[in-house]
Amino acid sequence: MSESCIFCRIARGEIPSTRLYEDEVALAFLDIGPLVKGHALVIPRQHVDPLMDAPEDLLARLIAVVRRVARAQVKALQADGVNVHQSNGRVAGQVIPHLHFHVVPRFEGDGLSWNWTPRPYADPHEAQRLALNIRAAMEP
Amino acid sequence: MSESCIFCRIARGEIPSTRLYEDEVALAFLDIGPLVKGHALVIPRQHVDPLMDAPEDLLARLIAVVRRVARAQVKALQADGVNVHQSNGRVAGQVIPHLHFHVVPRFEGDGLSWNWTPRPYADPHEAQRLALNIRAAMEP
Repeated sequence: MSESCIFCRIARGEIPSTRLYEDEVALAFLDIGPLVKGHALVIPRQHVDPLMDAPEDLLARLIAVVRRVARAQVKALQADGVNVHQSNGRVAGQVIPHLHFHVVPRFEGDGLSWNWTPRPYADPHEAQRLALNIRAAMEP
Repeated sequence: MSESCIFCRIARGEIPSTRLYEDEVALAFLDIGPLVKGHALVIPRQHVDPLMDAPEDLLARLIAVVRRVARAQVKALQADGVNVHQSNGRVAGQVIPHLHFHVVPRFEGDGLSWNWTPRPYADPHEAQRLALNIRAAMEP
């Protein structure tokens, strides 16, 4: 828990939010700056950040809520698809340093595009070298 | 399992991939069209799609692998951050219709930006109405 964290304050009810779901560990509410109407956030009540430091059982609870919200967006809004997006670190676009999943309903012609520009490896061995390093750093 | 699905074929070893991690239910490997060097994919071996239809226990296993990969990217590549991204439906940008999580290591000056353009609700009651619909569609 953090005194000044906006998402902790939303979880405590000190800042109003348009809630979609809540239980003992998680909360879902509408993002006030939606990429697409119905864009939701799923957060833990507990102050955790980033995802890399979150307990596995907490992540399991959160991803289950993400699934519930996505299913409800499809059913209630007739969404054609859903994006789940999660950022860790300012460089990744994270603004509020409290773990959160964006759940964005998608519609034909909704005007959102993710600027997806693949940059294939120039050297065929580069990917192998990177993978070797990542595998060596993988925890048991 | 699907005969022609590319990710099923990768899971079966019929198409080569640069693997980072594998266990009985999940697989992580490098995306051949990386947004940033080290960009990984986490998939279930089982053919499941979309996230909304995935069993909760499978999602729990996958998000735990996402966390492991993200931790290893930070440790091995000295990443400054990590994005987790997941698309459901062509309209959401999904290309391969087999559940997958993108795990993208982020670095200062890596040139990736997500085109994040919030479009706040014009009518203050609009969010309330949407939330009412979504809550009503939420499964118990």
